[in-house]
Amino acid sequence: MADPRFFSVAGPFTLKTLAEISRAQIGGGADPDSLFSDVATLASAGPGDVAFLDNQRYLDAFTTTKAGACLVHPDLAPKAPRGMALLVTPEPYHGYARVADAFYPAPPPKAAVAPSAVIDDTAALGEDCRVDAGAVIGAGARIGRRCHIGANAVIGDAVVLGDDCVVGSCASLAFCVVGARVVIHAGVRVGEDGFGFAVGKQEHLKVPQLGRVRIEDDVEIGANTTIDRGAGPDTVIGAGTKIDNLVQIAHNVQLGRSCMVVAQVGISGSATVGDGVMMGGQAGLTGHLRIGSGARIAAQSGVMRDVESGAAVGGSPAAPVREWLRGVAAVARLARKKGG
Amino acid sequence: MADPRFFSVAGPFTLKTLAEISRAQIGGGADPDSLFSDVATLASAGPGDVAFLDNQRYLDAFTTTKAGACLVHPDLAPKAPRGMALLVTPEPYHGYARVADAFYPAPPPKAAVAPSAVIDDTAALGEDCRVDAGAVIGAGARIGRRCHIGANAVIGDAVVLGDDCVVGSCASLAFCVVGARVVIHAGVRVGEDGFGFAVGKQEHLKVPQLGRVRIEDDVEIGANTTIDRGAGPDTVIGAGTKIDNLVQIAHNVQLGRSCMVVAQVGISGSATVGDGVMMGGQAGLTGHLRIGSGARIAAQSGVMRDVESGAAVGGSPAAPVREWLRGVAAVARLARKKGG
Amino acid sequence: MADPRFFSVAGPFTLKTLAEISRAQIGGGADPDSLFSDVATLASAGPGDVAFLDNQRYLDAFTTTKAGACLVHPDLAPKAPRGMALLVTPEPYHGYARVADAFYPAPPPKAAVAPSAVIDDTAALGEDCRVDAGAVIGAGARIGRRCHIGANAVIGDAVVLGDDCVVGSCASLAFCVVGARVVIHAGVRVGEDGFGFAVGKQEHLKVPQLGRVRIEDDVEIGANTTIDRGAGPDTVIGAGTKIDNLVQIAHNVQLGRSCMVVAQVGISGSATVGDGVMMGGQAGLTGHLRIGSGARIAAQSGVMRDVESGAAVGGSPAAPVREWLRGVAAVARLARKKGG
Repeated sequence: MADPRFFSVAGPFTLKTLAEISRAQIGGGADPDSLFSDVATLASAGPGDVAFLDNQRYLDAFTTTKAGACLVHPDLAPKAPRGMALLVTPEPYHGYARVADAFYPAPPPKAAVAPSAVIDDTAALGEDCRVDAGAVIGAGARIGRRCHIGANAVIGDAVVLGDDCVVGSCASLAFCVVGARVVIHAGVRVGEDGFGFAVGKQEHLKVPQLGRVRIEDDVEIGANTTIDRGAGPDTVIGAGTKIDNLVQIAHNVQLGRSCMVVAQVGISGSATVGDGVMMGGQAGLTGHLRIGSGARIAAQSGVMRDVESGAAVGGSPAAPVREWLRGVAAVARLARKKGG
Repeated sequence: MADPRFFSVAGPFTLKTLAEISRAQIGGGADPDSLFSDVATLASAGPGDVAFLDNQRYLDAFTTTKAGACLVHPDLAPKAPRGMALLVTPEPYHGYARVADAFYPAPPPKAAVAPSAVIDDTAALGEDCRVDAGAVIGAGARIGRRCHIGANAVIGDAVVLGDDCVVGSCASLAFCVVGARVVIHAGVRVGEDGFGFAVGKQEHLKVPQLGRVRIEDDVEIGANTTIDRGAGPDTVIGAGTKIDNLVQIAHNVQLGRSCMVVAQVGISGSATVGDGVMMGGQAGLTGHLRIGSGARIAAQSGVMRDVESGAAVGGSPAAPVREWLRGVAAVARLARKKGG
Repeated sequence: MADPRFFSVAGPFTLKTLAEISRAQIGGGADPDSLFSDVATLASAGPGDVAFLDNQRYLDAFTTTKAGACLVHPDLAPKAPRGMALLVTPEPYHGYARVADAFYPAPPPKAAVAPSAVIDDTAALGEDCRVDAGAVIGAGARIGRRCHIGANAVIGDAVVLGDDCVVGSCASLAFCVVGARVVIHAGVRVGEDGFGFAVGKQEHLKVPQLGRVRIEDDVEIGANTTIDRGAGPDTVIGAGTKIDNLVQIAHNVQLGRSCMVVAQVGISGSATVGDGVMMGGQAGLTGHLRIGSGARIAAQSGVMRDVESGAAVGGSPAAPVREWLRGVAAVARLARKKGG
């Protein structure tokens, strides 16, 4: 059970309601009217809890869990312990996400502006916003409805935020236009100068950075991530794209829709990335690349060439995944053969 | 055209003036008195705009651009579209930087101290400084003239800043002495404890970190970068060095003058780096290394040995670039030959 | 000598006292009553200073130092310059840590709450805390005795901190329970949402993150590091573990006791790491791994499989260190042989 100091649980819900919420079928001959009061992991769940199985690694835990109900793929449902209520769905993790959201709904922000927040007279704040202590909102900024601006966050002059955005503590936004339902975690830096210098032998000449950052709807940006503004064109983060912590996105990058960018990735300037691209942790892209939609980039890859739509690459420098793994295997054979 | 909510454009300027500013020659038989009103990219420029060509990738865009004028290398000038005014220079990107700075000059900060800023009575603030809302300046700090301290930034006790420095929102400086014209972006951490522990089997003993960070003139430090103070000697960032976002610089590092350090680089403790060294993104250096002046370190390199002046290294562990690339090619051949 | 603007020196101390403090034997026939007034590096020390030799790289500096006294391993003591007082110990760096701490003791925080700090009426602050300007402490938070909350730091609702903790400037803590003597440096983000999405073709569904972060006693966390809260179970940092700057620790990670995690490491979700594990800079771990106690993970490693207790791995993908280095050597031979 989630710590009640931090989380408030809703419910209980009947199995029937949970099946509707999770878009699952009731299995295991369970009573649709039985009540469940919380979500839990397989290892910690009890008879009143709903758990989920999404990763084969946890199959043992599934067979021995005390969970009263479980979201599970039809293929694995037969391995359930006797008496467990099943919520059968081809997407158990999606189902869990919906059930967990029902038990722990994110409440709308409690509208209030802290006395110590500093909001410029020319800024426009939508209805029902919450602005926490020490937050600063600059001249001409326009903030949508029901936004939550965290403590000591800084919204720069003329920044635009859509409805239902969340800006975490100590984050700072500048030179940017942000859509609706965008979540920006603590310590994020949006809109700082790109790393633009005309490099010389003696000195490096700063190039004015004249673009913005455009963040489309439903984007989420992880803690302490940095997204520089464009040098001339905008830096763009496409709708629905999710970015993890400590990611670097350089000036002029165009990220498509619904990409997943794992922690500590670095994307160099002017890269154009399609829709639905997956980037594993600590991967890096050199400048001016084109990455096609649906491409998958393995963790720690060093991508130095364009990647075609749907292709999977890995290694540093990155190669097609099969070629990379063959190279790894070949080197391992050499190491065993010739090593001292 | 840059978004007027965020940027104010100066001008227009005659071609003759732009040639002087950019240190270029007028080419293409253009009228020196013709007027230009903005900068733009090749792709978006119109007849009143000045663009630039600096990267062969954009040669196609150059031949079809609608830009009225363009900064271009003499070798590529013949490929210009008819009627375009040329600003011919061996360094078109430097020229662009100067022209863009003329159209969009960074104004001196509007001198003002926000009522919510907290400045210790014993701190000394130079003339014409701007201190934004929520900024905190500690006891005995000395801030030069025309500095801009961003919202919610923290300047620690006894910190010294030269003239014309910019400290971004939510940045924090401690135990440091900073020169003139230094730009520190949002979220930067200067002067925290180095990672100094006497490692034991049971417990790790903290070693007091008794040095400072010295940042020389004209340094720029990217968002969320961390620079630890020295353990005994100072950590030093040489004049004119430019550091990108999310870089880690450990205690006692001595970075030379005019280095370029790209995003997410990590430099371990006590490294001594010469002048004009280039480090690609995500490169890492182990401790106590010596890197000679003019060395170039490829992105994602793992440097475990000293690097001579002027040498170029790549790979992890890093080797001379040619050796590294031969190794990559050899492995690729093996992968094609023996792979399953 | 440490800059007196930033540090206050105690002492002087007799050699006898320093021997007790450092748990060393007096060597070199030195007078136990001779006085020393400061610590210094071998290169900069004078007759009144205590230095240390811990790394063979600095043996030359040892033989020529002007230091009046030096902490040194018994094996290297014979190489000391004539007349130097020796503090002989098998752990000279530990000895130095203790001596430096005696000369530069960290004073307890000066108890005071800045007028601009915002502390919720329902928060409980222990005795003798220091809360700096602009810090924000949320509803129901419980802060132990003698804690120091830095300027513009944010302690979220219901967060618990033990005694003698330090929270740096601009750091933010949420959804966490923290032990005693924990040091959290500037810009750290504890307790943000983990990167939890049920990935879909069109959209990625957010999974509520219902766990906390538990940080045990004597942990230190470097600047701008991010530690996400658990998805259901807690994220746990074991007692005595030291984490460097810009490290990413994902949801559900369980780090053991007394680990050392160097800068820019990334640990993916649900990894379980034993006690005393060492991770070199920029290393990365994929999700759901088990790393045994005492394992050593080389810098820049990409760990994709479980690692046994006491094992040492390196490379990307990571292999046992000897195998990795043989592979590196084999590729280098190929590069020399077949290269163009």
